[in-house]
Amino acid sequence: MTQFMNKKEDIVTEAIDGVIMASGGKLARLNGYPHIRVVVRKDWDKSRVAIISGGGSGHEPAHAGFVGKGMLTAAICGDVFASPSVDAVLAGILAVTGPAGCLLVVKNYTGDRLNFGLAAERARAFGLKVNMVIVNDDIALPDLPQARGVAGTLFVHKIAGHLAEQGADLETLTAAAERVIKATRSIGMSLDTCTVPGSPKEDRIAPGMAELGLGIHGEAGAEQVIFDNAAQAMAAVAAKLAPVMGKAPHVALLNNLGGASVLEMAVLSYELARSAMGEQLRFIVGPAAMMTSLDMRGFSVSVLPVDAADTAALQAATPVAAWPGCNAITEVSVVDLPDGLAPIRPMPSPHAATQAFLTRCCEIMIAAEEDLNALDAKSGDGDTGSTLAGAARALIGAMERLPLADHTQLYRAIGQELSQTMGGSSGVLLAIFFAAAGDAASGGMTMQDALRAGLERMQQIGGASLGDRTVVDALKPALDALSDGMAAAAAAARAGADHTASLRKAKAGRASYVRADHLQGHNDPGAEAVARLFEQLLR
Amino acid sequence: MTQFMNKKEDIVTEAIDGVIMASGGKLARLNGYPHIRVVVRKDWDKSRVAIISGGGSGHEPAHAGFVGKGMLTAAICGDVFASPSVDAVLAGILAVTGPAGCLLVVKNYTGDRLNFGLAAERARAFGLKVNMVIVNDDIALPDLPQARGVAGTLFVHKIAGHLAEQGADLETLTAAAERVIKATRSIGMSLDTCTVPGSPKEDRIAPGMAELGLGIHGEAGAEQVIFDNAAQAMAAVAAKLAPVMGKAPHVALLNNLGGASVLEMAVLSYELARSAMGEQLRFIVGPAAMMTSLDMRGFSVSVLPVDAADTAALQAATPVAAWPGCNAITEVSVVDLPDGLAPIRPMPSPHAATQAFLTRCCEIMIAAEEDLNALDAKSGDGDTGSTLAGAARALIGAMERLPLADHTQLYRAIGQELSQTMGGSSGVLLAIFFAAAGDAASGGMTMQDALRAGLERMQQIGGASLGDRTVVDALKPALDALSDGMAAAAAAARAGADHTASLRKAKAGRASYVRADHLQGHNDPGAEAVARLFEQLLR
Repeated sequence: MTQFMNKKEDIVTEAIDGVIMASGGKLARLNGYPHIRVVVRKDWDKSRVAIISGGGSGHEPAHAGFVGKGMLTAAICGDVFASPSVDAVLAGILAVTGPAGCLLVVKNYTGDRLNFGLAAERARAFGLKVNMVIVNDDIALPDLPQARGVAGTLFVHKIAGHLAEQGADLETLTAAAERVIKATRSIGMSLDTCTVPGSPKEDRIAPGMAELGLGIHGEAGAEQVIFDNAAQAMAAVAAKLAPVMGKAPHVALLNNLGGASVLEMAVLSYELARSAMGEQLRFIVGPAAMMTSLDMRGFSVSVLPVDAADTAALQAATPVAAWPGCNAITEVSVVDLPDGLAPIRPMPSPHAATQAFLTRCCEIMIAAEEDLNALDAKSGDGDTGSTLAGAARALIGAMERLPLADHTQLYRAIGQELSQTMGGSSGVLLAIFFAAAGDAASGGMTMQDALRAGLERMQQIGGASLGDRTVVDALKPALDALSDGMAAAAAAARAGADHTASLRKAKAGRASYVRADHLQGHNDPGAEAVARLFEQLLR
Repeated sequence: MTQFMNKKEDIVTEAIDGVIMASGGKLARLNGYPHIRVVVRKDWDKSRVAIISGGGSGHEPAHAGFVGKGMLTAAICGDVFASPSVDAVLAGILAVTGPAGCLLVVKNYTGDRLNFGLAAERARAFGLKVNMVIVNDDIALPDLPQARGVAGTLFVHKIAGHLAEQGADLETLTAAAERVIKATRSIGMSLDTCTVPGSPKEDRIAPGMAELGLGIHGEAGAEQVIFDNAAQAMAAVAAKLAPVMGKAPHVALLNNLGGASVLEMAVLSYELARSAMGEQLRFIVGPAAMMTSLDMRGFSVSVLPVDAADTAALQAATPVAAWPGCNAITEVSVVDLPDGLAPIRPMPSPHAATQAFLTRCCEIMIAAEEDLNALDAKSGDGDTGSTLAGAARALIGAMERLPLADHTQLYRAIGQELSQTMGGSSGVLLAIFFAAAGDAASGGMTMQDALRAGLERMQQIGGASLGDRTVVDALKPALDALSDGMAAAAAAARAGADHTASLRKAKAGRASYVRADHLQGHNDPGAEAVARLFEQLLR
């Protein structure tokens, strides 16, 4: 089994029940399982013309997914890729058809034509007004006298459904549906076939090839073509459609045949607008999975010239979730980048004591390079020492452009420098530490509280708590002890750093991927760096 | 290339432009391609708190597809499965954040946390109010201290987006988002990995196996399990979720990871409601592709306990097409089958002349059995004669229950008998012919006109025109000539039938699949049957 299904013979009834359960009480079904699978609007009062469609299953959300106010009144569902029976169609007609009659929207396949056709006759024998239209929008096989019905059927559902909701009579609706059918053209392209439940997947399309002009039942496409990329694929589709479109404004329906990703469909949307059809296209329905061929990785484009009335019908609101709406195709609206992306450059200001202190901190880190690398080799890739030393060297080089006399600005400036010179997560986290400390300092906090605020933000973003075997294990106790003086802070940092050697499991950072027995007995290199910094500053 | 894309490095920018073009003018993007890929609401006036989300691409429609009134204000898009840069996030924040501030909704991945986190710090340096929440809904890896953020993020987008639209302030929104995050639990299952653009697809999951507890970046699931069917798959998911749900009413979000068919997702919907979680589930979002992992054939379920306010937020209307709505989960509403499915049994009535005429017709068909089979062997499967003879024998056997004295009823009754005794298309088409003729006769038409009306309906349903090498080629001229007497009708039928031998191409029916040179020189068996009927009746 390679699909989310149960028994093959239950797939359609279970799927229908799934759709009804999730419809928020808007749908119901006839009590005819397993042979009669008819989904109906629960709020239907027969006061208007019923729009009935259906056919084989495997095209979901068509057709049950399009039952609802402003679209279908009922959907008659056959087995996967097989027409429903005459009895099923008749049951659907009888269930929803009132004095206003009903319109059957049937895709042009022999089985559907016959079964819907005979059901219509039987219904007429009851005195019901039943009209039937046959959708044949596929242009893949121009020599075939009976073109197939594919995703263009959705145009008929929406436009007829809207007019029916507005109260149009059966003859008006039939004429509108026939007009839409006559003007609709569709063609599809696929990179793979579909997986028919219970059957092995046919391996028909070689890598690098695509089928152009396929149906929605896994049947082979009209031709196999070389597949280069999305642009060329859409161009091949446009080469078929554009010549039959004329100059009128059109709506395009971009249909996912079931297995293309949403990302791919968005790229195809982009290419559709840029294609040879683009100039005539004013509106788009989708991209969305509307008339699928199970899980086929392919798409189809249906086009219809539209006037204001058709556009209004296609754009009319409907509670049917599977209908993706009909939007105007626009240029891509581009907004200027906001000001402020270039970092604010603080005004440099000299301050001898601060420069000496900062330089001393940097020198301590540079001196610890080899030891910290060795420690990091136990739990990571052995570069913590080099990363910190490199940042320290860069900071010494940047000393002249720092606002040394303005401590509030200085935090942010150090953060800025570190984020630009240190790679990886540690650079970002230190930048966050200093930026948040700067924020706090500018709000009037003491240095100790500002640094603690920075640590808190760094922990929030980095996700490390005390005991997770990170820099926090030394830095947090050190900052907490700072009010008792540097000696207390240094002692606390050392105790915290040494404690990390006993932590069997790292819970954040890269060391969390390392086995516990490789970690034990070695201090975390980040925590060790903090301990050394405080200890050395004390000397 | 096995995907609809162009150059790998353009896939995200092209997809974004595709989404914007098809948005009906509701979206725009910042002018920062290729590195800054930020989608924003075009109608945004900064009067309320901005809701900003994003992360790596490959999760479409997340996140750009959820930008719109009542959901996201902006989406920051990284490369496929890679965090956007600090600059990109900062650009997004600066572009949409006004005095009310902004809320960053970030999924719990290190890259996203760091880049969104640092961008937030930089934005705060401009005096902007920026809060950030981290979504960690995945329960696949209970021992991981930092759970991943997956599809449950959509709950946060919708609830926070709705509250923001209502004018809630940043603190209220942040608290609401944190409350939703704390209560949301998700887990996924997949039958296959995803196809990362530009990389070969990993073949990790053997047929018959599934991964349970997977992430949305193609990373391996927490465990591989045997996959039996949809029910068992959902049961495995429920076994993880149900124990952490408690007794409160919940909403479930049923997410397509990108490659499951719409049919499969409907079956999973059905199983969701029947699962061990079912009793607590009151509402459902989806099934739909919301937070995908490219084309992964899998699904995830996210659950959240909801009160009336949350439900209202989730159900509030939004123009965002990718949001599938939130419906109450209901029982399957079942409606009684309509009356009238059992065929109307006409009252039998004797009429000697009619019985004799009908019997004679049947005998002619029985006598022609072998000849017609031989003709059909040239163009079909050689059974036209047997099919017609079988129907004729059955009709003779049914004579006593036919309404022989009521000609209007008789047409319909014959149609009914034929549809039950003749298999295949021909039985249905003859049933349609007689039923439509009966309709016309009951409307007061002459026999000739009624039969012609029947033929017209049969042609509409069957799709055959004159010259298509079908029964129509004899029947239509015969019926047209009937007003000049049976001799004229018989001559016309014979001429029409013989003409079919010269028709090189069948355009309807099964013979349309047969090569022209196999057909030429042989009469169509259906047309020949009609000619023989009229000729023999004349004798």
